[in-house]
Amino acid sequence: MDFKFLQELIAPAQTKIAMIIMDGLGGLPLEPGGKTELETAHTPHLDALAAQSALGLTIPVRPGITPGSGPGHLGIFGYDPVEYEIGRGALEALGVDFELEPDDVAARGNFCSVDTAGVLTDRRAGRLPTDTSRELVKSLRTIQMDGVEFFIEPVKGHRFAFVMRGAGLGDALTETDPQKTGVPALAVQALAPDSEKSAHIANQFVEQARKLLAGKQPANMILLRGFAKFPTMPQYRDIFGLNAAAIAVNGMYRGVARLVGMQVLDVGGTEIEDEFATLEKNWNDFDFFYLHVKQTDTAGEDGDFGRKVRVIEQVDGLMPRLMALKPDVVIVSGDHSSPAVLKFHSWHPVPTLLYGKYVRADGIAEFGERACARGSLGVLPAKDVMPIALANAQRIGKYGA
Amino acid sequence: MDFKFLQELIAPAQTKIAMIIMDGLGGLPLEPGGKTELETAHTPHLDALAAQSALGLTIPVRPGITPGSGPGHLGIFGYDPVEYEIGRGALEALGVDFELEPDDVAARGNFCSVDTAGVLTDRRAGRLPTDTSRELVKSLRTIQMDGVEFFIEPVKGHRFAFVMRGAGLGDALTETDPQKTGVPALAVQALAPDSEKSAHIANQFVEQARKLLAGKQPANMILLRGFAKFPTMPQYRDIFGLNAAAIAVNGMYRGVARLVGMQVLDVGGTEIEDEFATLEKNWNDFDFFYLHVKQTDTAGEDGDFGRKVRVIEQVDGLMPRLMALKPDVVIVSGDHSSPAVLKFHSWHPVPTLLYGKYVRADGIAEFGERACARGSLGVLPAKDVMPIALANAQRIGKYGA
Repeated sequence: MDFKFLQELIAPAQTKIAMIIMDGLGGLPLEPGGKTELETAHTPHLDALAAQSALGLTIPVRPGITPGSGPGHLGIFGYDPVEYEIGRGALEALGVDFELEPDDVAARGNFCSVDTAGVLTDRRAGRLPTDTSRELVKSLRTIQMDGVEFFIEPVKGHRFAFVMRGAGLGDALTETDPQKTGVPALAVQALAPDSEKSAHIANQFVEQARKLLAGKQPANMILLRGFAKFPTMPQYRDIFGLNAAAIAVNGMYRGVARLVGMQVLDVGGTEIEDEFATLEKNWNDFDFFYLHVKQTDTAGEDGDFGRKVRVIEQVDGLMPRLMALKPDVVIVSGDHSSPAVLKFHSWHPVPTLLYGKYVRADGIAEFGERACARGSLGVLPAKDVMPIALANAQRIGKYGA
Repeated sequence: MDFKFLQELIAPAQTKIAMIIMDGLGGLPLEPGGKTELETAHTPHLDALAAQSALGLTIPVRPGITPGSGPGHLGIFGYDPVEYEIGRGALEALGVDFELEPDDVAARGNFCSVDTAGVLTDRRAGRLPTDTSRELVKSLRTIQMDGVEFFIEPVKGHRFAFVMRGAGLGDALTETDPQKTGVPALAVQALAPDSEKSAHIANQFVEQARKLLAGKQPANMILLRGFAKFPTMPQYRDIFGLNAAAIAVNGMYRGVARLVGMQVLDVGGTEIEDEFATLEKNWNDFDFFYLHVKQTDTAGEDGDFGRKVRVIEQVDGLMPRLMALKPDVVIVSGDHSSPAVLKFHSWHPVPTLLYGKYVRADGIAEFGERACARGSLGVLPAKDVMPIALANAQRIGKYGA
């Protein structure tokens, strides 16, 4: 939907919307003819809610497209993930909860191994342990240059987030990773005149890193990829008229929520219960809540069907705490599918439930993939869920006379 | 659909299509878990027709968007209501069955109250009775100016339609309504050079109206809003190859039908039976008929669930008269939803039935919201219904070899 079109119709209201996102919610049966993770899970509360809801299956990006977490979230947040692309460098920085500023240039960094001639021998430095990586990041932080500030944040294993902050830095830059061993790392090149300065700085940084890391095999060099600025996104308050809060433990999701203008709340713990407690505590202060459950996706990616079932059951057990707050509209969905049998994100449409006083309920007392396929929301782009939720929260005025 | 694309595929045929639009057809249950108005209605003929039809739910404008009658009708007529916007002034003139010409500039007018200093004290002149308003309109009609013709038509209460006809009149004009009391009315300003002349004329008209109405409290002044020309719409004959007729009692619907090139028939009465009699009488002379039932919407807006049910049952009782004419294709739908519980137009998708000899029937012997949610048309933009109906009437040729 064209945000300008929607924006002009947005009307103030006192209603509250809660969006519960179980990451990678959609699944597949273990055996042909069997049930998916969600269908297997014993979910009395979600089933009861489904009976009073409209159901459907959402397509996060485009039919057949498997989304990463960034695009998956942008979709269910109401944005077209193809139109609003978050560069990989920016995502890496968001993922470690780094507060990117509009002119920062971020990149994905990683340690690698080179021989004495500077030829790449291992692009991942033997998949360095995170602890070793953290120590090496500390030494990279000693690199200083005039007119630019560097931020280096450890991610996991051999990976780190790299950020340059300063005036006149463009992000039209080539990568240093040649994508193969047996050749030297490449120099960063500017693809536009506004990025000449950042190319020069990035190359100087790599050169100083090479000197600092000399002798620290296997991590004696770095690679930088996916240079990107923080994208400017239409903000929730402006396009939807919402004072929105995000409840998420992992940096990536907190980062994407911050990107669209949500206030990211302190959870004070890493459990799903802690997230629901945060929801209760902040209920009076916002009119939209996004609550993110990571554990469904992790179980799916681990190929652990049973654990994914148990996480869904755990969320089901917490649903009464949300419903006790008397939300006007509730969305339960995922950012994409992560079937345990695939051990990976997938392209499958995502089961989605929309509850509200003015929702035309389908009367299907089950929340599952095949139940949702029979629902009146149909198979719809994920980005259409927000306007429908806003309508049901009576936050959109009439179009035309 | 791109009309140019469709237009090239349109093939002549002798088939006839009937589109029965029950205004505001879609509804909601009175109580959670209950039935909607359409589901409650006893509709043996529509149910029997549904069994031989494809069912679906139409989205008039965009997901979550509540349409006015203009956009709602454009959608089911086959146009994207966002692309083809009808200005409020033009709609007001259409609504009183005024035959707008392509260069006319129309506005929504209304009587208001001002104090001796010209400060607005009531923007609606105490919601003037229609009879009083009619008398005052007569005096406004005495205003004359060189090079321009004025048309003033009473609407309802304090409202009237205002039309300027003459050479060189643009519609890029600001409104005179300041949207609040305690301040004087605003002067009309031109937003483009081609509208300087119309701004000048409109301001002169308002000045003369002020003099004429002096002392006629509470209606001693006028406001003009929503200046707009008659939009140029692709015509039914050109894009669909149809010789189309419209059967509607209210001006607004007759106006929108005229806009797309339908011939508006004299109904000779205001009852739904009169409309079906008009259909029978003109059956041989056209190949497309739009028949509009206003009473469903009025009942919905009045919050009268039972009356809306009875209107639907009345239409059901008249369906055999349509079917006796042996139409090749029948569409039964609405322009939007108007649930009695909301007493207003709403965003909910609209139950839609498509009958025809070559329709792949769903075999669902019920016409209702939840039955339509299970239908093979799925949840579809309203504008897609016309091409599907044309195809079933064998009026679209093959694309490509």
